Amino acid sequence: MSDSIFSKIIRQEIPAHRLYEDEHCIAILDIAPLSPGHTLVIPKEPAVTLDQLSDSAAAGLGRALPRISRAILKVTGATAYNVLQNNGPDASQSVPHVHFHIIPRSPDRAQGLGLQWKPTSQDAETLAELGRKIARLL
Amino acid sequence: MSDSIFSKIIRQEIPAHRLYEDEHCIAILDIAPLSPGHTLVIPKEPAVTLDQLSDSAAAGLGRALPRISRAILKVTGATAYNVLQNNGPDASQSVPHVHFHIIPRSPDRAQGLGLQWKPTSQDAETLAELGRKIARLL
Repeated sequence: MSDSIFSKIIRQEIPAHRLYEDEHCIAILDIAPLSPGHTLVIPKEPAVTLDQLSDSAAAGLGRALPRISRAILKVTGATAYNVLQNNGPDASQSVPHVHFHIIPRSPDRAQGLGLQWKPTSQDAETLAELGRKIARLL
Repeated sequence: MSDSIFSKIIRQEIPAHRLYEDEHCIAILDIAPLSPGHTLVIPKEPAVTLDQLSDSAAAGLGRALPRISRAILKVTGATAYNVLQNNGPDASQSVPHVHFHIIPRSPDRAQGLGLQWKPTSQDAETLAELGRKIARLL
């Protein structure tokens, strides 16, 4: 469990542009936005990565995402947006406390999240075997 | 509302490497994975974008993400992962039915999701005003 900058923001020990708060989470503006309206949705439960989050905290976080997205779209006029959540330094996680980015995107693509998408090739039997192994744990 | 390839997979009209199913969502392996274990978590509710999803569907989807992530990490041995959800063609959404990608990442970064992160500069007063406008809708 973490006591990061986000825990301090949740406890209002340091300031933030606060958009939303409920039992499970808060939303704040990112102060280094990729585009106007770039928002962080942060669970109050101080898990470092998503896999460490409790079911109830994860459900509360999920529930809040659509309504926060609607408000951001309405105010910014964005036509599209990416939702991103990074886990671990190797996946570009910056603050060790779970957070979802909501990043508005405009048609000109001058601002917002840039994605590099390079699919690998996996044969059907390799995929099927991997799928069976994961499904067995679920 | 959409009747996409994902609705057909949910109804089992077309095959998929199915990992998980509950009342609210299914999880399947992506057949063009960015890395081994690349998974799609798909709500049964056929919303096109996250902002259109009902509160209960969004909560159910959120609740499932940690447990599915844990199973993927355990089987793949990945040290990190990105969770990504794209809304609208301008944000690289490919299938018009909400879906979260869970994309494992390894230390060598040879596979997985590539991110381009170019923060914009916004002065404190612009951010504060934007924050107040969004907060008023929430």
